[in-house]
Amino acid sequence: MSEISQQLENLYQVIFSRRDVRSQFLPDAVPDAVLSRLLYAAHHAPSVGYMQPWNFLVIKSDEVKQRIHTAFNEANEEAAGMFDGERRELYSSLKLQGILEAPVNICITCDRNRTGDVVLGRTHQSDMDLYSTVCAVQNFWLAARGENIGVGWVSIVKQEQLREALAIPEDIVPIAYLCVGYVSEFFDQPELEKAGWSERLPLNDLVYYDQWGRQGEEETLGERIINDKSFPNL
Amino acid sequence: MSEISQQLENLYQVIFSRRDVRSQFLPDAVPDAVLSRLLYAAHHAPSVGYMQPWNFLVIKSDEVKQRIHTAFNEANEEAAGMFDGERRELYSSLKLQGILEAPVNICITCDRNRTGDVVLGRTHQSDMDLYSTVCAVQNFWLAARGENIGVGWVSIVKQEQLREALAIPEDIVPIAYLCVGYVSEFFDQPELEKAGWSERLPLNDLVYYDQWGRQGEEETLGERIINDKSFPNL
Repeated sequence: MSEISQQLENLYQVIFSRRDVRSQFLPDAVPDAVLSRLLYAAHHAPSVGYMQPWNFLVIKSDEVKQRIHTAFNEANEEAAGMFDGERRELYSSLKLQGILEAPVNICITCDRNRTGDVVLGRTHQSDMDLYSTVCAVQNFWLAARGENIGVGWVSIVKQEQLREALAIPEDIVPIAYLCVGYVSEFFDQPELEKAGWSERLPLNDLVYYDQWGRQGEEETLGERIINDKSFPNL
Repeated sequence: MSEISQQLENLYQVIFSRRDVRSQFLPDAVPDAVLSRLLYAAHHAPSVGYMQPWNFLVIKSDEVKQRIHTAFNEANEEAAGMFDGERRELYSSLKLQGILEAPVNICITCDRNRTGDVVLGRTHQSDMDLYSTVCAVQNFWLAARGENIGVGWVSIVKQEQLREALAIPEDIVPIAYLCVGYVSEFFDQPELEKAGWSERLPLNDLVYYDQWGRQGEEETLGERIINDKSFPNL
């Protein structure tokens, strides 16, 4: 990566080595100093109309975690039943959460009414507040990777059970339920790729020019993408 | 920030100094080498079930940009009418996009059917594919900041006009329309804060413990957040 500075190389390294962690959590406590920095990172996400619609529920109670874990198990059993044959077997063999092992769980929510009815930038795209909150999740996740802390996003859980376990009101949308903690290792590939669930798509196939579906031969960017040597370890 | 490594400090610096850019775009071309890296960063976002539901439309055509700009103007006029009095005046004084000035525009979309009907992790939360795509947007945005490239997210535009201008099919959801380019400066604060539109919320007010709304005095994290000296420039 001689083309770019060490500083930039470090940033890309964090982006490329971020993982969705399920099985490698260590019991070591995450210091308040570190959690505070991660929350500051999340809080500095972009938000539509500067709405900052997020809240952060920091969960350390074993009882609360246990309730979420039970809700996960119920949903996960339903989920397994939706796949067929070999796919179902592979699905059932995957560990898809670390709720109880991770020392901290964090639920990031979106308050859809935070700044009133009319929000700058949300007048023609009402989901922008949800998207803002996802940006906060991704900031949190990348900062965590920088701190050598693993994060796993648990989405296999029914919203109403999550609400109930955390006493989340009706007008608040839970966006992400995250398991957070130090890890024994970060895998070099996404876990679903390692497990043979699916493969990374070739980036160049996903890039169009000026109009949907257009991939002209005159495009030098496409060639660059195919031959990009910036990241030899990808 | 003596508590953390230089490498980590650089990461937080990128996160905290990222801006939504509207007015500071320079006409300088963004090299293919840089665009390629930004797209690799986006493509390495987390995605539900490793779905990778995103596409990237790279827009340089003046004609296409012009169409989007017209759609923005129409929506923005409607939007201004939704605010009252002083608020409307302030709204109308804000420049909210750099579509024509930015040398590149990029539309990031979500293909909701990319990997079939049943997607691991999406069985109980159907919007996870949209959220994955937003993570790609945020990866792109942070990598861009690292490359000293400004990004502005244009959300004040009707979806059907965006689709029409870019020939985006019905089953594909446009998530973000981004203006991308080098800039004359990055503001030290979010533009809406600078303009007096609204203020940053105190982080500690947004953090709850184990249950929605709970902020116990026994919580040492709250104290740490209030007294965090990691980032003296925030």
